[in-house]
Amino acid sequence: MLFLEVKFLDLDLEANAVIINEEDIKGTAYYSQDRVLIESKTCSFIGTLQSTKTMIKPGEVGVSKYIKDVKLNEGEEVRVRHAQKPQSVSYIRKKMNGQTLTADEIHTIIDEIVSKKLTNVELSAFLVSTYIRGMNTEEIVAMTKRMAETGDTIQWEKRPVVDVHSIGGVPGNKYALLTIPIVAAAGMTIPKTSSRAITSAAGTADVLEVITNVNLSCEEIQRVAKTTGGCLAWGGAVNLAPADDIIINVERPLSIDPQPQLLASVMAKKIATGIDYTVIDIPVGYGVKIKNEKEGNQLARKFIELGELLGIRVECVLTYGGQPIGRAIGPALEIKEALMALHDPKSAPNSLIEKSVSLAGVLLELGGRAQIGQGQKVAWEILESGKALEKFNEIVVEQGGTITKPEEIELGEYTMDIRSPKDGYVTGISNKLITKLAKEAGCPKDKKAGIFLGVKTGNKVNKEDILYTIYSSSEERLDAAVNFARRTYPIKVEGMMLKRLSKF
Amino acid sequence: MLFLEVKFLDLDLEANAVIINEEDIKGTAYYSQDRVLIESKTCSFIGTLQSTKTMIKPGEVGVSKYIKDVKLNEGEEVRVRHAQKPQSVSYIRKKMNGQTLTADEIHTIIDEIVSKKLTNVELSAFLVSTYIRGMNTEEIVAMTKRMAETGDTIQWEKRPVVDVHSIGGVPGNKYALLTIPIVAAAGMTIPKTSSRAITSAAGTADVLEVITNVNLSCEEIQRVAKTTGGCLAWGGAVNLAPADDIIINVERPLSIDPQPQLLASVMAKKIATGIDYTVIDIPVGYGVKIKNEKEGNQLARKFIELGELLGIRVECVLTYGGQPIGRAIGPALEIKEALMALHDPKSAPNSLIEKSVSLAGVLLELGGRAQIGQGQKVAWEILESGKALEKFNEIVVEQGGTITKPEEIELGEYTMDIRSPKDGYVTGISNKLITKLAKEAGCPKDKKAGIFLGVKTGNKVNKEDILYTIYSSSEERLDAAVNFARRTYPIKVEGMMLKRLSKF
Repeated sequence: MLFLEVKFLDLDLEANAVIINEEDIKGTAYYSQDRVLIESKTCSFIGTLQSTKTMIKPGEVGVSKYIKDVKLNEGEEVRVRHAQKPQSVSYIRKKMNGQTLTADEIHTIIDEIVSKKLTNVELSAFLVSTYIRGMNTEEIVAMTKRMAETGDTIQWEKRPVVDVHSIGGVPGNKYALLTIPIVAAAGMTIPKTSSRAITSAAGTADVLEVITNVNLSCEEIQRVAKTTGGCLAWGGAVNLAPADDIIINVERPLSIDPQPQLLASVMAKKIATGIDYTVIDIPVGYGVKIKNEKEGNQLARKFIELGELLGIRVECVLTYGGQPIGRAIGPALEIKEALMALHDPKSAPNSLIEKSVSLAGVLLELGGRAQIGQGQKVAWEILESGKALEKFNEIVVEQGGTITKPEEIELGEYTMDIRSPKDGYVTGISNKLITKLAKEAGCPKDKKAGIFLGVKTGNKVNKEDILYTIYSSSEERLDAAVNFARRTYPIKVEGMMLKRLSKF
Repeated sequence: MLFLEVKFLDLDLEANAVIINEEDIKGTAYYSQDRVLIESKTCSFIGTLQSTKTMIKPGEVGVSKYIKDVKLNEGEEVRVRHAQKPQSVSYIRKKMNGQTLTADEIHTIIDEIVSKKLTNVELSAFLVSTYIRGMNTEEIVAMTKRMAETGDTIQWEKRPVVDVHSIGGVPGNKYALLTIPIVAAAGMTIPKTSSRAITSAAGTADVLEVITNVNLSCEEIQRVAKTTGGCLAWGGAVNLAPADDIIINVERPLSIDPQPQLLASVMAKKIATGIDYTVIDIPVGYGVKIKNEKEGNQLARKFIELGELLGIRVECVLTYGGQPIGRAIGPALEIKEALMALHDPKSAPNSLIEKSVSLAGVLLELGGRAQIGQGQKVAWEILESGKALEKFNEIVVEQGGTITKPEEIELGEYTMDIRSPKDGYVTGISNKLITKLAKEAGCPKDKKAGIFLGVKTGNKVNKEDILYTIYSSSEERLDAAVNFARRTYPIKVEGMMLKRLSKF
């Protein structure tokens, strides 16, 4: 046991860190990362020990001044001693050893994640062991339910409530800006929450934010969806399935996305949002998460099975994800392209229209607004009639924005056309390099930055044709992006004769 | 890219943390745990981004004032942008996916661990994937060699240099205090480094520190061993295989000890210390790492195989680890017991004498100081003749202490005898509970605290016989320990009739 004086620190890095000078723990059984119980005469709490050479003097214990529900006074003496590790640690070890976890054990893990009792070391161990060992369906169901229960939930009076969700990875994937108003215009309720860019150049929330507010509370989501039928909100402004955000913060640095977490993360948000039917878009192709149809089918089956067990009807759609959707990548460029498609769908890029309309079609069929096999046709009619545009504008206004025409969207003032070095065919557009290029130009923070594609895969091009245009608000960023483009060739142009073999 | 002003912080928690206000990264592609490159006009370095609500104002970037080799000025503008993740991250992912790593890949991981480039999330992922996926012999050899190369190394003129190492887990395991002087008295060179208590009540270094200095540098270890043949130093004061200490800091919170790391950690220290022969003691029994002989044999074979590939001759000895060695647990009690055994080996506890003498015997045979089969006898003669005591005192003095008699050792002034509640037999002494009890009494920091066992497993006892005595320097700690003892019964006494079954 250590007796130390409280010293408050302006520190909010790790939950309940308790900072002690190395001198005080030398020769004791206390080590960094140990759980310790801090007791004063009036209160106690459990923290994680961190050792320091300099931040705290010997004899003192540094405690964050933002620590909740703890009443300590600066200079007060407290006792510090070992506390039990969180229960989760032994369950995580069980998973490491390849055992199946019970529902109760999974509940404890999720509860302790949400209440921030687990350190990064422990969270990482949980994700890596789930990644390697996997989880069976019962485990995933338990995890999904608990993730939904440990956050806010939305209840709806009018049912059914439907949803469409893309597991992502394709640049320019702005389909929701068309699909949601089409479905809402058909009289269905579709309160869509979207992400911001995580690894991409622009999430749907970043794109729509160019013309309206996307930071809606649960109450606002309900109000907008009740009034208009639709809604396009940022999922991060609400506390739906909050374990997910904490888990993502550890997945990102490791660049892993264990399938149990992927499934649970998507479905937990659906439960919390009160969704009855959802259509899940699984882009397939080189440069996205799912590389081929076989993998896509497997994932789809798991989503459908999980949905059944959770009481949510799930349909999955595999879509072509081998190149960007439409021609625009970056928030302002994408909202402009979406607005143009809503105004004049016949002139819009095929890939965007087809994807938006076919996903809407599935939802219309599920909701009984179109006969089986007719959904896509009905969706197209709603889009072409201008009803989708009208509904989109309603949603924009209801969320706090003003109606905007495509020509009113401002793009980055610094631009550069990248031209084809030769005659030939576009043999590939790299999703990953296009995304990186857009980020070099300033996406997603610079909303006016991005890429506009002059060509798509398979197009014939002549030397000096424009392959794409880079936009940026900063001359320096534009230069950086142009340099990146010249080094990496995000779009490949090749002659028909790829390789010439001769006798010797 | 972010442009921010440098603000120095008195922060030494995580290597190269770079603290940025949440406001500055909201809506950008920057997240906590991202690697970022910080560039000023004159220098640049890579750090790990941490976000804060309060520690740093928007527009500023908090940098530790202890960051090495970086010349920044407070208030200077720097550019912050994404940097590559350390190379190790993709190799760690490879291991997660069950692939074998090349020697180069393992070298990179160890190098980046030692240079503190990996975050706790990444270190945890490395250990968990090694724990689950394992490593083949080539991988372990590569890891062991690199762990040795990345720290200090000791070279010896006089060879061979020998060593004895216990993989631990048994309370009261003070054998080295007898074995080292016996072997050194026979003219061999045995520079032993020991640990302090990690999870135990007292490491060998804690025990010897009661009467002499154990914080020796590499030079001091060489000098003491050259002069006396032996040495009993704390391994933590030297920079031998430093990756190990960093790895242990992540293993401890997860309570895992992946076998590849266990093997590499032991053998890397042997390489770095310049050892030619080593005897590895593998305690086997309930309450230690290795539960049965089969597991012990498997581990022994791996140590021997690894030794062959590394050019170190390894012999393994499985020893009985089902109860404490000797009767004393705790630094002062243990040094007193060891001194008594050196002075009068015939009166000392059998378990201590047998273990010390048999391990010494193996080393004497390996070093040609005894014929095969005669080692234990020769070791006993050295001990009984008083030569081991003489050598022990030489080492104590050479390390900076003074010769101490057993009766001069001070024990905790507060004591309590715990007595048998009934007539019967001692059916078990729990290693884990005895260790916890000694720690409750104040071990290892309170050197005078500990447990002295009045009985060992199998002994017949009468009601009110003393089972053990608890010592502490603090009345409060003694009370806490007595309470713990009364709750947990570390020593079980049972009648011969364990259970009575009758007809109904």
